[in-house]
Amino acid sequence: MPVPAPVLYPPFNIVRLSHVEYRVTDLDRSRAFYVDTLGLQITHEEPGLLMLRAMEERGHHCIILREAKAADVAVLGFKLFDQPDLERAAAFFAGKGLPVDWVERPFQGRTLLTRDPWGIPLEFYVKMDRLEPIHQSYKLYSGVRPLRIDHFNMFASDVDAAVAFYNEMGFRVTEYTEDAETGRIWAAWMHRKGGVHDVAFTNGRGPRLHHSAFWVPTPLNIIDLLDLMSTTGWVDNIERGPGRHGISNAFFLYIRDPDGHRIEIYCSDYQTVDPDLEPIKWDLKDPQRQTLWGAPAPRSWFEEGSLFDGADVAEPVLKAQPIVAP
Amino acid sequence: MPVPAPVLYPPFNIVRLSHVEYRVTDLDRSRAFYVDTLGLQITHEEPGLLMLRAMEERGHHCIILREAKAADVAVLGFKLFDQPDLERAAAFFAGKGLPVDWVERPFQGRTLLTRDPWGIPLEFYVKMDRLEPIHQSYKLYSGVRPLRIDHFNMFASDVDAAVAFYNEMGFRVTEYTEDAETGRIWAAWMHRKGGVHDVAFTNGRGPRLHHSAFWVPTPLNIIDLLDLMSTTGWVDNIERGPGRHGISNAFFLYIRDPDGHRIEIYCSDYQTVDPDLEPIKWDLKDPQRQTLWGAPAPRSWFEEGSLFDGADVAEPVLKAQPIVAP
Amino acid sequence: MPVPAPVLYPPFNIVRLSHVEYRVTDLDRSRAFYVDTLGLQITHEEPGLLMLRAMEERGHHCIILREAKAADVAVLGFKLFDQPDLERAAAFFAGKGLPVDWVERPFQGRTLLTRDPWGIPLEFYVKMDRLEPIHQSYKLYSGVRPLRIDHFNMFASDVDAAVAFYNEMGFRVTEYTEDAETGRIWAAWMHRKGGVHDVAFTNGRGPRLHHSAFWVPTPLNIIDLLDLMSTTGWVDNIERGPGRHGISNAFFLYIRDPDGHRIEIYCSDYQTVDPDLEPIKWDLKDPQRQTLWGAPAPRSWFEEGSLFDGADVAEPVLKAQPIVAP
Amino acid sequence: MPVPAPVLYPPFNIVRLSHVEYRVTDLDRSRAFYVDTLGLQITHEEPGLLMLRAMEERGHHCIILREAKAADVAVLGFKLFDQPDLERAAAFFAGKGLPVDWVERPFQGRTLLTRDPWGIPLEFYVKMDRLEPIHQSYKLYSGVRPLRIDHFNMFASDVDAAVAFYNEMGFRVTEYTEDAETGRIWAAWMHRKGGVHDVAFTNGRGPRLHHSAFWVPTPLNIIDLLDLMSTTGWVDNIERGPGRHGISNAFFLYIRDPDGHRIEIYCSDYQTVDPDLEPIKWDLKDPQRQTLWGAPAPRSWFEEGSLFDGADVAEPVLKAQPIVAP
Repeated sequence: MPVPAPVLYPPFNIVRLSHVEYRVTDLDRSRAFYVDTLGLQITHEEPGLLMLRAMEERGHHCIILREAKAADVAVLGFKLFDQPDLERAAAFFAGKGLPVDWVERPFQGRTLLTRDPWGIPLEFYVKMDRLEPIHQSYKLYSGVRPLRIDHFNMFASDVDAAVAFYNEMGFRVTEYTEDAETGRIWAAWMHRKGGVHDVAFTNGRGPRLHHSAFWVPTPLNIIDLLDLMSTTGWVDNIERGPGRHGISNAFFLYIRDPDGHRIEIYCSDYQTVDPDLEPIKWDLKDPQRQTLWGAPAPRSWFEEGSLFDGADVAEPVLKAQPIVAP
Repeated sequence: MPVPAPVLYPPFNIVRLSHVEYRVTDLDRSRAFYVDTLGLQITHEEPGLLMLRAMEERGHHCIILREAKAADVAVLGFKLFDQPDLERAAAFFAGKGLPVDWVERPFQGRTLLTRDPWGIPLEFYVKMDRLEPIHQSYKLYSGVRPLRIDHFNMFASDVDAAVAFYNEMGFRVTEYTEDAETGRIWAAWMHRKGGVHDVAFTNGRGPRLHHSAFWVPTPLNIIDLLDLMSTTGWVDNIERGPGRHGISNAFFLYIRDPDGHRIEIYCSDYQTVDPDLEPIKWDLKDPQRQTLWGAPAPRSWFEEGSLFDGADVAEPVLKAQPIVAP
Repeated sequence: MPVPAPVLYPPFNIVRLSHVEYRVTDLDRSRAFYVDTLGLQITHEEPGLLMLRAMEERGHHCIILREAKAADVAVLGFKLFDQPDLERAAAFFAGKGLPVDWVERPFQGRTLLTRDPWGIPLEFYVKMDRLEPIHQSYKLYSGVRPLRIDHFNMFASDVDAAVAFYNEMGFRVTEYTEDAETGRIWAAWMHRKGGVHDVAFTNGRGPRLHHSAFWVPTPLNIIDLLDLMSTTGWVDNIERGPGRHGISNAFFLYIRDPDGHRIEIYCSDYQTVDPDLEPIKWDLKDPQRQTLWGAPAPRSWFEEGSLFDGADVAEPVLKAQPIVAP
Repeated sequence: MPVPAPVLYPPFNIVRLSHVEYRVTDLDRSRAFYVDTLGLQITHEEPGLLMLRAMEERGHHCIILREAKAADVAVLGFKLFDQPDLERAAAFFAGKGLPVDWVERPFQGRTLLTRDPWGIPLEFYVKMDRLEPIHQSYKLYSGVRPLRIDHFNMFASDVDAAVAFYNEMGFRVTEYTEDAETGRIWAAWMHRKGGVHDVAFTNGRGPRLHHSAFWVPTPLNIIDLLDLMSTTGWVDNIERGPGRHGISNAFFLYIRDPDGHRIEIYCSDYQTVDPDLEPIKWDLKDPQRQTLWGAPAPRSWFEEGSLFDGADVAEPVLKAQPIVAP
């Protein structure tokens, strides 16, 4: 098995992915997408800035939208278990020769800002402002009824190395695709919070963010979103789906925000809390790993992604993925 | 408006589409598809022959599968309102110089066998054997939980002429696609029973049967069928979908039986019983008429269809449909 | 079988139930219920009056709410097939010695106003103002996503007689409950438009309107409505359900409007267009006829109903229904 | 706040609830319920014994059914994180003066058998036999499509004390009901695995098991189960629901197995992995805490439960719960 053994006692305790900050070029248009169409709730706004949460989240924000000249990803955020984990995390990154900055974030407090070895900007905090529950305020539900942020998916130029690094931080592999010819990992899904993933890596020009995902109650909510987007001017922002992933078994839809940032709407994966959960291996040649039902993905889905601020993109270790033409 | 005015008092009273007889080349394989996978119920079987009904039907059969050397469509069946309608139907077809044969059909009684002007074999009857209700025998539900046969969709070489003929029989147009350049009808959906259609015609080499459709309870049953087909060896028989049609607003899936006969799984169109229901016109250039969500259909879906026994196929009046490549 | 044979060629052609006019005592509160909570669309409003349609209806209104000192039901409306049917209907009612008045209704034109033998005010028209389709304007969907008005259910003091009268008008019985002791009909469901019913009658002090019903896409929309009502101050207006009726097989919910008028939310009954459809008989002693799943209905559901304007209420022919206490 | 602060670093690491062993009096009848009706999968059987798992579980069993003279609950099982946790657990229980027995369980290995202070038999293990995934073997799905065991709910004679004890073991309170008059906890929901609960306690004669719960994909699966049970002889085993809990926000159904053991079918609660998740407090006088939609539960639901083998039942500290009569 090419995936590393899980680290049961990692150097610091990451609870879950927490939030992403997108730089966007037209905040009004982004608001129309994320708030009026997807149904995320505004928790803070000021000129040039919008902070949002999903319906069952009590933390202050899962998406930050900041108006900028060019669109990219400013940072990926993760929640740590306890205060000492912050110091341990700093020691971990410092020990790798990676940057360690302490910043005070609004609504989020003391935050460790760093980068992974490929330059992906990461931040860690322990306690974000907590808000009143709104998951039973059904009058507020709209759009796709987003419940919570679920995961980040990234292109990596060297997936084996990325998996090894995130594994060391305690992310555990649940499923992966192996390139049988080279024995290398083509893609891997890794979790902290007990679902199929908090982060995933796929071979490609990287680092780039392939997508952020939101969890919704049932496939019917995804169908509702498709109907809504199709009749409110967003039909061209529907990229792929609906479908069932072989990997993760999730029901999915991929859409693009006004700047091209890709959002996955996602439901029905499975519980992965067992530390002895055996990773499921898929063959790169099996088309059902991507779409259980066999429908091909469009070329854009394989090729396009969002840049990370300050991270240089490198060519992938493995040759281009064989795209199954429709 | 290029569609003809509805005939409120047609020459005979067709209640609804009733059944289709498919000739199939491997009855065991067809049984695996229609019974074990879709969940249709066997009401009669003998060597070389299988008769099926869906869960809420009380008539004896909606599909007849007959083993044969080559696959085609033997006949499309329709139910008439009352005995006098049979004689009136015979007079109507005889008056058009079309064949009129009387046959005794098992489980179906006295049946008028004829053809439309393009050679599509049609049969009409009044009273089929009636069976006990099984719609509340929930233990029997399986597969996609098919409730009833919903419609036939045909390629026609001259859709204007086909619509005029079926309109004269009392089928009323609910939606249609116009070729703006020629002012001709590209496709039309026509009903008797109060849904969007019992029959539909699309420009193409015809006559050929594009598909027969079954009504199911909700989109989730279609998702269940996709999951089932994908993991029981039928993934290559999934042709298109799931999706939402612009025309009819139905949630759909297209699959192919072992001989290539196309079956649509369909739900959630709308009630059309008002005789003054205004047909909805779609522009041939509007891609959302086919898929509200914008996903293109594969080439096979535009080009392939089942032959009707004894009917010669002609080239279409209108030029080939512009296929939107994925 | 105690139900009368269907009249295949009735004296005039009723297409379907069409609309109900409720008198309400607080129009703002009624608007909060029907528009803001259920999601019906306003098609006309003026002081003291609100007219609404559901999402797939193209006729101008299915509910009229008129502010009044006391709450009752002003009229039940039905759509006829063609202009001559209006005259035939007038002749039918006149021949029975029942009132025949011609009124000009806004948005509805020439209308025959009459009463059934028990005083229920009925009106018939042929062509209501037709509106643009909104069934694909998904931005407008809210609440329970009501698609169309489905049926009226009435308490009748003599169900046998009511069934005989409406049968003569062409309503066909689909299901009924028999009181085995007397051989009389306890309740009956009768249709024109191809579902289980346009009208139903149940033994009780009558005539009174038990409920009007709206068709929705799936059971999940009913669950959404329950969540919404429960968290927006309407929890006490939830009377019964959700559940599955044995009779009709429909998934249901009963709610009460601010004046106590009962509304059923309803989906998933079955197609009944066959003129030879055999009515399904239920035994009055079978508790599953009301709730397939066995849960009892509250006493209010058996006892309370809306009065019809100008109709005197009589005691029922049959003794009180055995209420199964929870 | 009367609930204790969460213990972030408990004496040993419980991953999740794992399994329950029910003693049943007629194994064939229990098989008809759990396997043929609910759709659980048999992983081992021998005379007098049946072991089952749900569709996404890779551990060998979540329910053990053992034929016996009388029905009760033999043990509740929990999975620990790592081998040292077993020793730490033994030390914890021994330190409390509670029994510590080491047993070798088939398919489960070395197991610590003990009791909580009220006599509930508990067992802990680290590694159960792991089976091949079947969550994508869609042909196997039937009944309610059970995905995984979700939680145990117990009557406790002293909920405050039970919460304190399980809190010390690391279970964290997510929601609770307070008896405002006494300031005591009436009921509490406590989790390890990141949902609303692994265990819950309600004031009552205890210890008794109120129910075990299974997670299913969507509310429609619960509706399917109701339809199935209602038409296959199990209608009297439906006890309460479907409904939405105020507490946990879950969609639920309660059914009784042939011996009266109560099973909850459950879906759509929320993620609780944040260690700083604030417990939600409900007032004992708020009827929506039990059923958001207001429908009352039957008396049996409040009063009946399964005995634990070898545990004496005590009267509750708090007076009987006010049952809202329907």
